[in-house]
Amino acid sequence: MQKPSLPSGTRDFGPVVLKRRKAIMQVLERVFVSHGFDPLETPALENLKTLQGKYGDEGDQLLFRILNSGDYLSKAPEADRHDSKALSPWIADRGLRYDLTVPLARFVVMNRGQLPMPFKRYQMQPVWRADRPQKGRYREFWQCDIDVVGADSVLCEAELVEMYLKAFQQLGLGVEIRINHRGLLDSLMPSLGSASAWSEFMVAMDKADKIGQEGVSQELRNRHLEHAVRVWEGLCAAQQEGDFESKLKAFEALAFFKNEDANAQSILQAEEALKKAADELRLLRSLLPAQASVVLDLTLARGLSYYTGAVFEVSPKDERLPLDFRLGSIGGGGRYDNLTGAFGLPDVPGVGVSFGLDRIYDTMEAAGLFDQMPSTWKGILFCPMDEASFPDAVRLAREVRHCGYAAEVYPSAAKLKKQLDYANQRGWCLAAILGENERLSQTVALKDLNEGSQSTVSYDDLVTHLKTHLPNG
Amino acid sequence: MQKPSLPSGTRDFGPVVLKRRKAIMQVLERVFVSHGFDPLETPALENLKTLQGKYGDEGDQLLFRILNSGDYLSKAPEADRHDSKALSPWIADRGLRYDLTVPLARFVVMNRGQLPMPFKRYQMQPVWRADRPQKGRYREFWQCDIDVVGADSVLCEAELVEMYLKAFQQLGLGVEIRINHRGLLDSLMPSLGSASAWSEFMVAMDKADKIGQEGVSQELRNRHLEHAVRVWEGLCAAQQEGDFESKLKAFEALAFFKNEDANAQSILQAEEALKKAADELRLLRSLLPAQASVVLDLTLARGLSYYTGAVFEVSPKDERLPLDFRLGSIGGGGRYDNLTGAFGLPDVPGVGVSFGLDRIYDTMEAAGLFDQMPSTWKGILFCPMDEASFPDAVRLAREVRHCGYAAEVYPSAAKLKKQLDYANQRGWCLAAILGENERLSQTVALKDLNEGSQSTVSYDDLVTHLKTHLPNG
Repeated sequence: MQKPSLPSGTRDFGPVVLKRRKAIMQVLERVFVSHGFDPLETPALENLKTLQGKYGDEGDQLLFRILNSGDYLSKAPEADRHDSKALSPWIADRGLRYDLTVPLARFVVMNRGQLPMPFKRYQMQPVWRADRPQKGRYREFWQCDIDVVGADSVLCEAELVEMYLKAFQQLGLGVEIRINHRGLLDSLMPSLGSASAWSEFMVAMDKADKIGQEGVSQELRNRHLEHAVRVWEGLCAAQQEGDFESKLKAFEALAFFKNEDANAQSILQAEEALKKAADELRLLRSLLPAQASVVLDLTLARGLSYYTGAVFEVSPKDERLPLDFRLGSIGGGGRYDNLTGAFGLPDVPGVGVSFGLDRIYDTMEAAGLFDQMPSTWKGILFCPMDEASFPDAVRLAREVRHCGYAAEVYPSAAKLKKQLDYANQRGWCLAAILGENERLSQTVALKDLNEGSQSTVSYDDLVTHLKTHLPNG
Repeated sequence: MQKPSLPSGTRDFGPVVLKRRKAIMQVLERVFVSHGFDPLETPALENLKTLQGKYGDEGDQLLFRILNSGDYLSKAPEADRHDSKALSPWIADRGLRYDLTVPLARFVVMNRGQLPMPFKRYQMQPVWRADRPQKGRYREFWQCDIDVVGADSVLCEAELVEMYLKAFQQLGLGVEIRINHRGLLDSLMPSLGSASAWSEFMVAMDKADKIGQEGVSQELRNRHLEHAVRVWEGLCAAQQEGDFESKLKAFEALAFFKNEDANAQSILQAEEALKKAADELRLLRSLLPAQASVVLDLTLARGLSYYTGAVFEVSPKDERLPLDFRLGSIGGGGRYDNLTGAFGLPDVPGVGVSFGLDRIYDTMEAAGLFDQMPSTWKGILFCPMDEASFPDAVRLAREVRHCGYAAEVYPSAAKLKKQLDYANQRGWCLAAILGENERLSQTVALKDLNEGSQSTVSYDDLVTHLKTHLPNG
């Protein structure tokens, strides 16, 4: 007899965990809807043509491919039957969704002309990646994305950041939102001397989290990027300034620490990029509540190949978290210029952010936020002491539910201890014991499972009693 | 440039459809929770070992198999590389979930000892079948199952039927629930003469929907099953009786129309099966509300190989449906004896029913039930007439949301007509127009998009105005 198991990197979500996940998703969904976002769901199965070439070579490797049905080998030429890579295209036409962005782009292209523009959508669905499973990294995991497609105003960025703030506030988790702008980084080009130096600088900067400020300087020095070392130190100094505006001013001063080799054209481009970025950042900041926990992070790079404007990252900042808690960002996103170009529809701009559901869950758990979540059922487990009590128990449970409470009848006349153990295990707060004596007097023995107290309540008074003792049914 | 498409048999759920689907699922979920059912979600990916051999040969053919990662051919022996069937086991270890019952069984076995028993769970997730796509049949579709595992009391059947009744009542769709019992059908064995005649009888009876009563008789006659013809005609006569109890009595009379060839042992077994079934049916009926739309359907067979006790099927019965509407059942289920036997845990009984989400949607649409669903956003689209109005629009939208309404700021100072077209397309009921004049007087021009009327409302009065005009924010 086989012993069943789960594929590596996948999980069951049992009741305890799933109820918490659902509570998180419900909070997020309420925020999305209050901002006029519409839901979208796309199929798990996509044509591999849709997915391939969108996530780089590494991404293509990580796609889950579905074997074609029937005699899938029939079309494969003999020559390609001995090499996994060569055979794949012959035997697998479909794959599993890898993220929610490419399906969004496909949906927008397939439904263009019918969608309201801007198209504001939220999507919460699992995605699949054939990655090596690790702690906190799964092969099947959930993403939650919100995007505004077809609009290029900073109002959209402001709205998304405000939604981040509100969502985490309503989840009860303290966070900090770091913001940067691709234009600021672009404007560093002349200071760095060359496009290749700029790229090397970006790669080194991206490691600051791991190797620290001095580590980045050292790496730049090792690569003989003297300009870059000076820019990096200037950036770190600007980053030390207090508030959003001071940092931005310090950056503006820094960016025109020009390299003498830079030509006039590239300086002009950099000036324009800087002006646009600084204007957008100032407008964005002004549209957010003054007290919002939003900081300018001049060293935030975040997937530069994709983003073209503002970029965001959310980190937990909550004093209830253990000091050694290190999980990294729990959300991020930014503005892009060209969502649908790969599907033949150019010039569709947009901006989007995602919520890392799994990491949000882990962070909230580490901060003890679920401890306060009510785990009990607001209602009654009816405990029949004999089969003759079934009808009354069923009828009373029906009345209790009718008033908005949960109710359950234990499905046998088992020993009372067994039934009460079940009630405690399930988290019922009340148990109504119903046997021959109770039936004759048309009462139940109502046991408060938290306090242990017991009282006799008549059939007729049961609902009134509940309304008094469980006020928010 | 590639033109994107969806794999055959899959669907995008855009905003309009998805909001309705979510409303349906929310109603179902509320009913489940009010009965103390817990949610469960299992991964889309399962080991093929878990799935294979559970759905019959045809089911095995319809499983979606996932190609192993990396050099998947490396383990495949040369001899098996030329035959699709022989190669499969070497190159695919995992498949996609085919239903929600096998994953439930796997979950129960893997978590036994930790689950409260009875384990009452609901599960709403997509499943995948490599079937030929047809109208109303998809390769990726949703199932919604509720099961009570580990209990053998008829109280469970009664609870599930009551949940069916309540769910469809709350969805506003008229239905009829047909009930039968495997024991009644088993008790026909001696009347039919042999196990093989009994099986042929079941197969013929299952076609009654399509070929009619006389068609079944004819088929039985063609097969020279004279006893079966008499049983069938008796069954149909019993079926004509009016209420639950009369039909059951008629059946009890019929079942002992014994075949002279039957031996005493098989008659005894049949008597016992009949008595148990009739007792359970009577108890079940007595536990349901007297006026419930529940009928005994003596001809309901429903997957006999799997079920062992009561079986259920739900059909729409709603006068708002077109007369030619034929979609078949929108739910069904029954009692089983051995959920987890295939995974080495014998004797776990249970009972479960499923809700056919796609068919429920189609039926509700055909009955026009979505026409009454509010499709508008309760709240305001703010329409800024110049960029200088952005900050006020953002702030007012924030206040409106704070009071529980939805609000959105159009993300550019586009022409008013364009903004109002968008408001209508999205279904906003109010638009607040905000330009220089309004800013100076701290007012908005509030347009009712249903009635076309317009009024001037001050910033300070906006929320109060909303509370008066949109009472249930």
